[in-house]
Amino acid sequence: MFRPQNDFTYLMPAHFGGGKFDPETIVTQRSTSLVLSYETDRKGLENYIPEGFELLAPEVQVSFSKFTEINWMQGGQYNLINVAAPVRFHGKKDRLDGAYTLVVWENKTAPILGGREQTGIPKIHADIEDLHIVRPHYATTISYEGNTFLTMDFEAAGPIAGEELDVLKSQFASVNTLGWRYIPKVGAPGAELSQFVLYPQGVEVESAQAGTGSLRWTELTPMQNPAQYYIINSLAALPVKRVTQAVLTEGRAVLHAMGARVIE
Amino acid sequence: MFRPQNDFTYLMPAHFGGGKFDPETIVTQRSTSLVLSYETDRKGLENYIPEGFELLAPEVQVSFSKFTEINWMQGGQYNLINVAAPVRFHGKKDRLDGAYTLVVWENKTAPILGGREQTGIPKIHADIEDLHIVRPHYATTISYEGNTFLTMDFEAAGPIAGEELDVLKSQFASVNTLGWRYIPKVGAPGAELSQFVLYPQGVEVESAQAGTGSLRWTELTPMQNPAQYYIINSLAALPVKRVTQAVLTEGRAVLHAMGARVIE
Amino acid sequence: MFRPQNDFTYLMPAHFGGGKFDPETIVTQRSTSLVLSYETDRKGLENYIPEGFELLAPEVQVSFSKFTEINWMQGGQYNLINVAAPVRFHGKKDRLDGAYTLVVWENKTAPILGGREQTGIPKIHADIEDLHIVRPHYATTISYEGNTFLTMDFEAAGPIAGEELDVLKSQFASVNTLGWRYIPKVGAPGAELSQFVLYPQGVEVESAQAGTGSLRWTELTPMQNPAQYYIINSLAALPVKRVTQAVLTEGRAVLHAMGARVIE
Amino acid sequence: MFRPQNDFTYLMPAHFGGGKFDPETIVTQRSTSLVLSYETDRKGLENYIPEGFELLAPEVQVSFSKFTEINWMQGGQYNLINVAAPVRFHGKKDRLDGAYTLVVWENKTAPILGGREQTGIPKIHADIEDLHIVRPHYATTISYEGNTFLTMDFEAAGPIAGEELDVLKSQFASVNTLGWRYIPKVGAPGAELSQFVLYPQGVEVESAQAGTGSLRWTELTPMQNPAQYYIINSLAALPVKRVTQAVLTEGRAVLHAMGARVIE
Repeated sequence: MFRPQNDFTYLMPAHFGGGKFDPETIVTQRSTSLVLSYETDRKGLENYIPEGFELLAPEVQVSFSKFTEINWMQGGQYNLINVAAPVRFHGKKDRLDGAYTLVVWENKTAPILGGREQTGIPKIHADIEDLHIVRPHYATTISYEGNTFLTMDFEAAGPIAGEELDVLKSQFASVNTLGWRYIPKVGAPGAELSQFVLYPQGVEVESAQAGTGSLRWTELTPMQNPAQYYIINSLAALPVKRVTQAVLTEGRAVLHAMGARVIE
Repeated sequence: MFRPQNDFTYLMPAHFGGGKFDPETIVTQRSTSLVLSYETDRKGLENYIPEGFELLAPEVQVSFSKFTEINWMQGGQYNLINVAAPVRFHGKKDRLDGAYTLVVWENKTAPILGGREQTGIPKIHADIEDLHIVRPHYATTISYEGNTFLTMDFEAAGPIAGEELDVLKSQFASVNTLGWRYIPKVGAPGAELSQFVLYPQGVEVESAQAGTGSLRWTELTPMQNPAQYYIINSLAALPVKRVTQAVLTEGRAVLHAMGARVIE
Repeated sequence: MFRPQNDFTYLMPAHFGGGKFDPETIVTQRSTSLVLSYETDRKGLENYIPEGFELLAPEVQVSFSKFTEINWMQGGQYNLINVAAPVRFHGKKDRLDGAYTLVVWENKTAPILGGREQTGIPKIHADIEDLHIVRPHYATTISYEGNTFLTMDFEAAGPIAGEELDVLKSQFASVNTLGWRYIPKVGAPGAELSQFVLYPQGVEVESAQAGTGSLRWTELTPMQNPAQYYIINSLAALPVKRVTQAVLTEGRAVLHAMGARVIE
Repeated sequence: MFRPQNDFTYLMPAHFGGGKFDPETIVTQRSTSLVLSYETDRKGLENYIPEGFELLAPEVQVSFSKFTEINWMQGGQYNLINVAAPVRFHGKKDRLDGAYTLVVWENKTAPILGGREQTGIPKIHADIEDLHIVRPHYATTISYEGNTFLTMDFEAAGPIAGEELDVLKSQFASVNTLGWRYIPKVGAPGAELSQFVLYPQGVEVESAQAGTGSLRWTELTPMQNPAQYYIINSLAALPVKRVTQAVLTEGRAVLHAMGARVIE
């Protein structure tokens, strides 16, 4: 019969085995990212920030990333759309600033499962096109079962260098990614497990381009996207008042896979 | 700021809202299933049955299902491969027989997330072809990123009727599906949450065909399937001694979505 | 060395072999179709009807079909969107009425190649969702690399029976599908091969539902769909003045695969 | 009514318009290629070389390429597997050496259509994984509806430089790609159009890596791949006697899209 080992960590199905817990486990991957942040309505955005957090700025941070040469996927790849907002956590023990993850769409399921169950990143699935590139134009489309709900466009103006690049490198070198790990009760309302998790992540930016960017959310009906329409429509209802950052980066991510912790 | 409501149930991301917990929530869907069970080596199979369960027979139950007209997916559809073994649970409070879910592959992510987090069914992703049908032949192929790991074939011999159909209807009318909901600790080995869950499910079989069936597991390397190879290879290592059931059914599933409970 | 056989028919690559030409070759498949026809602007539609044809009515006929159990695909399946207009061909030898095929989208490549090269049906690729069904509602979405360009909706009002069903059966039993087989010159403008082809097709309708339907074309940019945007935008520019037929059918298609002929 | 313009070139559907024929049309794209050539049995390979060609060496040339930033696809991308053999064409007018294209698999339909109809390259569809990269290992899998039929592996030994790189650049700078454009008669055996086409292509290799490579063909049944099984099985039956070239290149392709011509 199967019995879990005390010093192992598992994901479902656990009974086929897990891996020895190693706090030094490193995730490495190449990363191409298109970052588009914009100012929005504070009241509207605060509706989606849980109690215990303070919204530091009425800003939605959307980034497309293509990850390749991912070591834990044996060199495989996937695309994601990360949507976050800048917050401060006011806990009983912890007080820190970070990026609260509103939602992440990914086009592969394996990283979705680990992200949700290990670190509370609310990952869900969508089709995410690789960047279409007609230099200096870059574009991507995100859709669900053929229904477009997000498009992102970028026009590069030129490479970022010198001090400006240093600032950017520093911005991306370490991000306090914050998630809310929530597992419901079985057969009852409420949570069986509800924890805020800090997962420090970062990208070593190697090169970057400045430019102008835009994005467009398209509302979907329940028939078009039964499990996500309300998420998309909530985001689509937040006005894009002003793009505050538009940048395209190339780099390498090195993550301490086991470096997350519950914050209280 | 967002605050969860006491009588609601949520999935990540919780902060965009959930649904009022309703114990009467019904899931309905059409179901076409190809069931292939086989006798295998008892010792080998027991390696994947957790302590607390007793293996009732050295049998692996594999079924392909195509679900359509799924109400909670607004009429959408997906395919799955369910792999289970017949067990008896010997708990402190509960003692019951059921089908212990070894692994489930599905070709859509949304039902994977709910299945794992709500009821502990260890669902993971694969590409699962719709049945190719050249009557009386039926076939499907299951693969990961282009790497075939399971094929199933069935040759129908004719409809099942009369008393035999009644027995079959009764077999599928209610199944004690058993899962192990396991959520790891953050930043440490071991489980933050570890529960066995009973989720009674059933299909109203409307028609069925008897026939002969076969399946073939193909081992994969970590490079071909980094997150699942050990699961596939564990199953591939279990001998197919004798096919004990091969049947194709059409029917309708009606599930009490909130009817699962933790067993102890 | 490879030499083609005189009594064989081939598709590229020819050198791996073809099949003996058999005028009795039969294609069989199951078919579920959603037919939505609408009145549009005559002048606008005539722009896309080649000289030699007369537009019989300012009508665009759009149909979604899911074909399954396809014999020449060994029981495989695909979805298509057929767009046609009712015409009369005034040739030197031939004079006949039929449905001129404006464009067909299919979600598998194999039938696209045969359709284009063997019978001049202008098939191109798109993602076409299986019908989402929440009775009595049916819906599908057609997209290209995540960019939605057509949605179709149908609400069934009830089965068609009696004389009305007979009329419908007769309408679908044989359709004079007309295509324009056009192969360009190599290294020069103009056609190396330009032929109009008649391919009689038909479906044995077994059951049908009446109802109300709607469709919506969405314009795309070249960046969203470089090879098809002008086709989509041409169709999107034609007004949907009035839906003239909305029907959902189930049936079986039996085609004489070699029954097409060039018309002059 | 639609009338084609004399100085235009068209693809089906022609009636929505084509483009002015421009002999200077340039196709540009980024290219990452894994080239694996091997010696095989001469008699076996000659079975697939049409009369009029002489097989110069019993060699099968297989290459995976990922094309990105493709100008005519507005910055889109696709993957292909090219299979060719070195030949000499002995025509009435033309005598030249080149690579006879046995078959090409691509994972997008648009370039398949143009390649077949414009230049006689026998392109068909398959799923082709992007390279999985765990330096120095590279791997890809090619499959059809989940059935693996080709895997390619490469282990890089180090960059190619100096004179060796010059030789490689020169090898790839211009390739006489040869295709057989074959369009069948309608309603009769034999060809309506049968032409050999020369399409000079080339890649400006920017960097390259030497290494060791291997590939494996897997036979498929008609049920697994109804339209291609005999092609795959023909190639799988040719022995891989010795890998004669294994190289990974990065570069840029610049093609004269209208630079092909019929050879006689």
